Amino acid sequence: MTKNLQIGDLNPPTRILMGPGPSNVHPRVLRAMSTPLVGHLDPYFLQIMEETQELLRYTFRTKNEYTIPVSGTGSAAMEAAFANVVEPGDTVLVPTNGYFGKRMESMAMRAGGEIVHVDAPWGEPLQVEEVARAFEENSPDVFAFVHAETSTGALQHSVEELTSIAHENEAIVIADTVTSLGGVELEVDKWGIDVAYSGAQKCLSCPPGASPLTLNESALEKIEKRETLCRSWYLDLGLLNGYWGDDRTYHHTAPITSIYAIREALRLVNEEGIENRWERHLRLASALKSGVEAMGIEMNAKEEYWLPSLNAIRVPEGVDDINVVKLLLQKYNLEIARGLGDLSGKIFRVGCMGHSANAHNISYFMMAFGSALQKEGAAIDVKAGLEETYRKLE
Amino acid sequence: MTKNLQIGDLNPPTRILMGPGPSNVHPRVLRAMSTPLVGHLDPYFLQIMEETQELLRYTFRTKNEYTIPVSGTGSAAMEAAFANVVEPGDTVLVPTNGYFGKRMESMAMRAGGEIVHVDAPWGEPLQVEEVARAFEENSPDVFAFVHAETSTGALQHSVEELTSIAHENEAIVIADTVTSLGGVELEVDKWGIDVAYSGAQKCLSCPPGASPLTLNESALEKIEKRETLCRSWYLDLGLLNGYWGDDRTYHHTAPITSIYAIREALRLVNEEGIENRWERHLRLASALKSGVEAMGIEMNAKEEYWLPSLNAIRVPEGVDDINVVKLLLQKYNLEIARGLGDLSGKIFRVGCMGHSANAHNISYFMMAFGSALQKEGAAIDVKAGLEETYRKLE
Repeated sequence: MTKNLQIGDLNPPTRILMGPGPSNVHPRVLRAMSTPLVGHLDPYFLQIMEETQELLRYTFRTKNEYTIPVSGTGSAAMEAAFANVVEPGDTVLVPTNGYFGKRMESMAMRAGGEIVHVDAPWGEPLQVEEVARAFEENSPDVFAFVHAETSTGALQHSVEELTSIAHENEAIVIADTVTSLGGVELEVDKWGIDVAYSGAQKCLSCPPGASPLTLNESALEKIEKRETLCRSWYLDLGLLNGYWGDDRTYHHTAPITSIYAIREALRLVNEEGIENRWERHLRLASALKSGVEAMGIEMNAKEEYWLPSLNAIRVPEGVDDINVVKLLLQKYNLEIARGLGDLSGKIFRVGCMGHSANAHNISYFMMAFGSALQKEGAAIDVKAGLEETYRKLE
Repeated sequence: MTKNLQIGDLNPPTRILMGPGPSNVHPRVLRAMSTPLVGHLDPYFLQIMEETQELLRYTFRTKNEYTIPVSGTGSAAMEAAFANVVEPGDTVLVPTNGYFGKRMESMAMRAGGEIVHVDAPWGEPLQVEEVARAFEENSPDVFAFVHAETSTGALQHSVEELTSIAHENEAIVIADTVTSLGGVELEVDKWGIDVAYSGAQKCLSCPPGASPLTLNESALEKIEKRETLCRSWYLDLGLLNGYWGDDRTYHHTAPITSIYAIREALRLVNEEGIENRWERHLRLASALKSGVEAMGIEMNAKEEYWLPSLNAIRVPEGVDDINVVKLLLQKYNLEIARGLGDLSGKIFRVGCMGHSANAHNISYFMMAFGSALQKEGAAIDVKAGLEETYRKLE
C-alpha cells in the first residue's frame, strides 16, 4: 500500500528578503544549522546554552539572569511573556497603535487579564501624557508597548518616561522588541524594561525557531507570587527555569539546531559590536529613506519616530500596491510587504534588517522599486532618488 | 562599551545518538537546513507547506485535512492538542503508566480540565478492561493515551479496542505518538484515533522545531463548539487554520527552516515506504534485543508490548547506571539515557530510531554497552550477545 508521493527536491528561488521578516540569513548561520546534533542534555550542549544566554544578555543590554531563547517563533516568546506575567484578574494596559497591540490584547485576555487601552493612531507612537492618563484612569498591573511596530514602521520613543510612569504605579512593563533587537538602539536595563521579547528572523537574521526573552527580578517576583498556574505548560517560565537555570533538568527537548543558529547569529552581533550594528542599520536605512524622499515619495513615519529597521513608505497616488509587491517578487526576486489593518493599501513595508541591511541590497531595492512604481504609473523622479541613495551610501 | 565576548566556533563532538531522542539526523535533512530562506508567505513556501502536509498525512496514515507541523517541539504539538480539545469543565482521562501521562495531566488541567486516571504500573500498557472501567466510572469527555512511552519503552497495544470504548462513550481520543510515528506501526484512521501528535527528533530523525499534529472531523467539531477561547493564542488551532488552511493568511511567522527540514525527513520516509520503515526498526531493534538477552540481561517490557524504537533494558544487579551512561558518552561518544520516575536507576533507555536505526550503530552499541557493563562488574556474557546480534543482523 506504500505510495511514493511525487515531491521534488527542495529548491527555493533566491530571494532578497526586505519585507518585515524573515531577513536574509548570514552564511555562517546557515552553516551552523547543518551541524549534526548532540543531545539536549549533553555537557557540550549545556555549554552552548550558557553561551547563548550570555550573548542574548549582551544584545538586550541587560544583566538579567533570566534571559533565554524560547522554543518557538517570536509569538511564542510573546505568549511566554503574557501567559506568565498576567494572572487572571490583572488589568493589562495595551496600545492601539498597530497590529501587535491587538495580538497583545488577545494573549493577555487568554491569560485571564482585563484589557484597557492607551490610544494612538496606527503609525504613530504612544504619547507620554496619554500613558500617564491611562494609568490614572485604570491603575493597570501590567503595561505593554511595542518598541518597534513591524506593522507600521513606527519607533516608540521616550521609553524611559513610559517605564517611569509604570513603575511609579507598581506595574510591570512588557516591551515588544521584535523588530528592534540587534538593529535599533535598545537598552533593557537602562530604560527600566521589566520584560522584553523578540524574534530571531528580523534584525538578528536568524531563521525563526528560538526567540529571545528576558525578565528582571520584579517580573520574576510577580510570577512567583501567582496564585494560579500559568495556563501554558510549554511556556511556563517556572518549569523552563529548571532547564535554563542552574539545574539543567529536562523540561522539553530544546530545538537544538535553532539554538546553534541563534548562537551563531548572536556571535555575529557581538563581533560587529552592538553599537556599530545600530549605526549600520541607521546609516543604510537613511540612504534608503533619503532616496525614497528624493523620488518624491513620502515616508509614513515622521522623522522623530521613523524606524530604520522597518521603513513604511506611503503608496503614491494612483498606484496599486498589490501589483508593485508582486512585480518585485516575480521580476526581481525581491520581497517587500504591503500594509496591514488600518494601513492596508496605504503603505509598503520595507525591511532593513540584520544581514539584509547592506549597500548591495539598498541600491538594488532603489532600482527595482523605482522601476516597478514607474511601471505602475507613479509620477516619481527615480533618477533623483538613485543619486541621493548612492551619495549617501558612499 | 562594546564587549567582545570570547565565545568560540560551534564545534560539537560527533555523537552516536541512541537515547530517547534526538536521533542522528540524515545528511539530506541537515543539508535542507542550510538552505536560504524564502518568506513565510512566498508562493514557493505555500507549496512547501502543502507538500509537508501531504507527507505528514502519508506518515500518520490519515486522510485528515487538518494535518500540520506545529511551530515548536513535540511538547508544543502536545499542548496544541490538549489546549484546544479540552475545555474548562471537561473530564479528561489520562494514564498513570509513565512520565508522559503526568505531562498530559498537567496540560489538560491548565486547559481547565478535570482529571481522572486509568491506572497501570510504569512500564506496562493500559489494559482494555481498565479503560472500560474508567469510562463507566467517570464518563470522560476526552481520553488520552501514550502509544509509545518514551520513558518506559512500553508499546500500547489494542489501540482499536481503546478507541472503540471511547467512541461508544462519545469521547475524543488523543494519542501521543511521539516515539512511534515513522518507526512503529501506526494507523491513525484505521485505529480510530481522533487526535495524534508527535515530535520530529525521534523516528523521523529531524531536528526538533516543527512537530506533527493531526485532527479528524470529530475533534474539530468539538473544538468548533467551544464556548471559551483556547487559552493559547500561539497554539489556537482555529487561528492556525487561517495559515495552514485554504486562506494562507498570516498568523505567526512559520519556522521556515524547520519546515524545510521536516519535509525532507518525511520525503525520506516516503521514499523508503512507511511499512518498510516499520519493518527496518523492528528488524534492527530485534537484533539489539536478542543480543542483550543473550548477554543475560533482561528487557523491561514483555515481548507483547516491547517497543522497538525505545528499548528499556534492565540495569543488571550491582551496576551503577550513571557510570555506564557517562562512560558510554565520554569514551564512545554514544548517547543512551537512564530511566525516569518510577524506573529511575532501574533501566537504560536505548533508542533505535530513524536514521540512527542501522546495523552500524546496533553493532557498535552492543560492543560499547557490553564493555561498559563489564567494566562496572556486571556478570554478563558479552561474547554470546555480540554473536547473537551479528547473526540477526546478517
